[in-house]
Amino acid sequence: MADALERLKERLVEVVDLGKIARILSWDQQTKMPPAGTRHRAEQMATLQRLAHEKFTDPEVGKLLDELRSVEESLDPDSDDATTIRLARRDYEKAVRVPSSLRAEIAHAASAANPVWRKAKAESDFASFLPYLERNVELKLRYVECVAEGADERYDVLLDDYEPQTKTAEVREVFAELKPPIVELIAELRDREIDDSFIHGDFPPDRQRALSHEVVDLFGHRPDTWRIDPTEHPFASGPGRDDVRITTNYHPDRLESLFSTMHEYGHGLYTHQQPQHLERLPIGQACSLGIHESQSRLWENLVGRSLPFWRFFYPRLQETYPEQLGGIELGVFHRAVNRVKPGLIRIQADEVTYGMHVMLRFELEQDIVEGRVELRDLPQRWNEKMWDYLGVEVPDDAHGVLQDVHWSGGSIGYFSTYLLGTVASVQIWEAAVRDIPDLSEHVGRGEFAALREWLGEHVHSLGRKFSPQETLSRATGSTLQAQPYLDHLRRTYG
Amino acid sequence: MADALERLKERLVEVVDLGKIARILSWDQQTKMPPAGTRHRAEQMATLQRLAHEKFTDPEVGKLLDELRSVEESLDPDSDDATTIRLARRDYEKAVRVPSSLRAEIAHAASAANPVWRKAKAESDFASFLPYLERNVELKLRYVECVAEGADERYDVLLDDYEPQTKTAEVREVFAELKPPIVELIAELRDREIDDSFIHGDFPPDRQRALSHEVVDLFGHRPDTWRIDPTEHPFASGPGRDDVRITTNYHPDRLESLFSTMHEYGHGLYTHQQPQHLERLPIGQACSLGIHESQSRLWENLVGRSLPFWRFFYPRLQETYPEQLGGIELGVFHRAVNRVKPGLIRIQADEVTYGMHVMLRFELEQDIVEGRVELRDLPQRWNEKMWDYLGVEVPDDAHGVLQDVHWSGGSIGYFSTYLLGTVASVQIWEAAVRDIPDLSEHVGRGEFAALREWLGEHVHSLGRKFSPQETLSRATGSTLQAQPYLDHLRRTYG
Repeated sequence: MADALERLKERLVEVVDLGKIARILSWDQQTKMPPAGTRHRAEQMATLQRLAHEKFTDPEVGKLLDELRSVEESLDPDSDDATTIRLARRDYEKAVRVPSSLRAEIAHAASAANPVWRKAKAESDFASFLPYLERNVELKLRYVECVAEGADERYDVLLDDYEPQTKTAEVREVFAELKPPIVELIAELRDREIDDSFIHGDFPPDRQRALSHEVVDLFGHRPDTWRIDPTEHPFASGPGRDDVRITTNYHPDRLESLFSTMHEYGHGLYTHQQPQHLERLPIGQACSLGIHESQSRLWENLVGRSLPFWRFFYPRLQETYPEQLGGIELGVFHRAVNRVKPGLIRIQADEVTYGMHVMLRFELEQDIVEGRVELRDLPQRWNEKMWDYLGVEVPDDAHGVLQDVHWSGGSIGYFSTYLLGTVASVQIWEAAVRDIPDLSEHVGRGEFAALREWLGEHVHSLGRKFSPQETLSRATGSTLQAQPYLDHLRRTYG
Repeated sequence: MADALERLKERLVEVVDLGKIARILSWDQQTKMPPAGTRHRAEQMATLQRLAHEKFTDPEVGKLLDELRSVEESLDPDSDDATTIRLARRDYEKAVRVPSSLRAEIAHAASAANPVWRKAKAESDFASFLPYLERNVELKLRYVECVAEGADERYDVLLDDYEPQTKTAEVREVFAELKPPIVELIAELRDREIDDSFIHGDFPPDRQRALSHEVVDLFGHRPDTWRIDPTEHPFASGPGRDDVRITTNYHPDRLESLFSTMHEYGHGLYTHQQPQHLERLPIGQACSLGIHESQSRLWENLVGRSLPFWRFFYPRLQETYPEQLGGIELGVFHRAVNRVKPGLIRIQADEVTYGMHVMLRFELEQDIVEGRVELRDLPQRWNEKMWDYLGVEVPDDAHGVLQDVHWSGGSIGYFSTYLLGTVASVQIWEAAVRDIPDLSEHVGRGEFAALREWLGEHVHSLGRKFSPQETLSRATGSTLQAQPYLDHLRRTYG
């Protein structure tokens, strides 16, 4: 039986390694690859994904899992081995229900849709993207049909791919609690005049780059294990603890890169502190996209937009950009980087309005999956909700329904994890403060070791061993709660 | 039967794709990866190679090859399909003799040895590298044992991995013909005084970088399909026509990068012009390392060190470095970059002494494989040969036995291909001149399209369809000959 477990692990290690390789290839594609290489890369990715799927859905894996039932039952359910078997069984049962041909069709449709979306967005032409979106949705619905047995609702199947063991109904409940107070707060804040003109202007990218490196050095990245590269759409990736790759975008006319670097640092630290002894097994990987996002939002918002942090770091920023910021006081700067202003674009949204962008998408996606909306009516529905939730008028689809890459890549069910993570980040921060009462003073001295270690011990080291809710519960003493986040918003912005 | 052929090709495509992925990972490791990432990368490479090996040695492939015997016989032996079957059979019969576990051990040991070698070289500490070298050699000897049946000698097995269908005895024969005249030429030239002091000095890397890009732009690289990165040891890689990656090293105190970039351009062009309709099949890949090297040496030496080229390009070089080269005449510069001077380092060697560096390694490797030398005695044997062949005294192992990366990566059997390619490059150049009589004038005008096209048609488009000797024969009308190369050396340097 020990042998069956070893053989199962060998299989899992292969699949995990192939996933890590795919991450390197994807990083390369977004940062280094010559543009024409797309053709080769699409082939390589398809081959890699097909092999990983074949390896994992091999009937031999099913046989091993059957053999291991009694082992699993004999073990402490929270032990690494029991969890490895349980997770593998869960992933296997989902994977084998989906025919390879459907996976290939989904991958193919997504690669075909992506360039069409890019062009449609550039030209604000939803109609040209519509047939491709229809195809992506149709395939995703076929995917749902394969896996839906036993699910409470169809959307659960899609959500589960990004936020495992999480029900749509649970998310709806948390979001329902968030919505009215956030709408109210936005109404209060929307006409407040805050000057942030000075964080737009002439910010040479080479100096932004130096600052970004300085910030992550301070937070605690080490150049022998991390790298930072420029890219169009910032992301974090990397195969493991000792190879962490974050990216950022140095817009020459604004300071955004600093916050996006802090955000990606949080993702990177999660990878950097994953449990080493489990790093080639599924349970050693990230818990969920929501938990991942809680890490990035914690560093970006709870640390990076806080007054203690800027007390420490603002002099460095002023030294770097004396013309723009030399005459701007700390308090004025701090208010500017926390300015609340309803806008059109999710990725540029402040902490308060951000949630509404996510809820809008979450609601529309459920309508799509349940057939309550015709795809051709999406732009109108989008624009109505933008007006209802944020009071902004959408001038064209490029600034509306076409703004995000996700649907073009067939990613439906992803968006809510952004807000789940944002909400969780406050609970996690507060739990850290309970254990490290002078955490704000640490931040004010530019010292982050205690926070890193706390996150490592209470969140990162758990890997994918527990569900997101269980992980959060073990880290903070409570499952996901709307109230701490709402209190934080009110305290910070109200 | 058509179906069996299609199924064989599907398998081959997967294996070729995995090889292309491995090339990206290796490029990444040498140019971008955080140093500590080695640990993860070794695991990824081992997994990738094991999977490729499993896929290719699957009994199903053997069955398909059996089924296809009659198809192969019914086809024109030079047709793409017949060659695909023949090559697959040849590769398969070699591959099935090697257990996957041994392949994985070889890959893993190589990844582990590389950083140790780096450090050992930096500290000139052969002893610290010795156990890793011993491990690499031990594994290679186990590999030889698996495959040696039917080979004339053990070294043939290793040579065949780099220079397929080529016998050690054939190489020895060509080298034996080269050695006395080269030794004689070196003796004649070694005391000739040529001033090359001005190509050493202050050459800021950023200007070298601009020049390197200018040269390859001129030769004909396109930024949408190529990239150039700095690295410690220049190499060329990339998965195919539209994703070509060359690297170079901008030493701030000398002009070497220009020649190394031209060299790697030659390799890159071979990849860039591989036959597109065969790019995912083995026959669409490079013929051999020797033929690869013939391409790089052609651009580096026959083009890049020629007087016509410098007549065209020297004014640009003088403009870039007016302080160093403003007062140096073209002829003086041209003699300096063709100066013959025995030295310690292979990759810095001039065209005449270069061959001796290769022969030394080729001889030592045969001694290693035949057990005629203890690895701990390698430094001494190395130093003795350097004295015998080149009359230079090796001051430390960093400048001796530790200088090359190959053995750290488990590449034994590789070195002779450098000289085989160098010899072939002269034959290929002369064949091109027969077809394009005014080729030197093209070069003198900075026009390279005709040469690129000729190489594409006569060499690159053949892919791996024929043996190196057959490829050379089809391109030039003759198999490998020492004499044209010796004549070229005497004409150029004598």
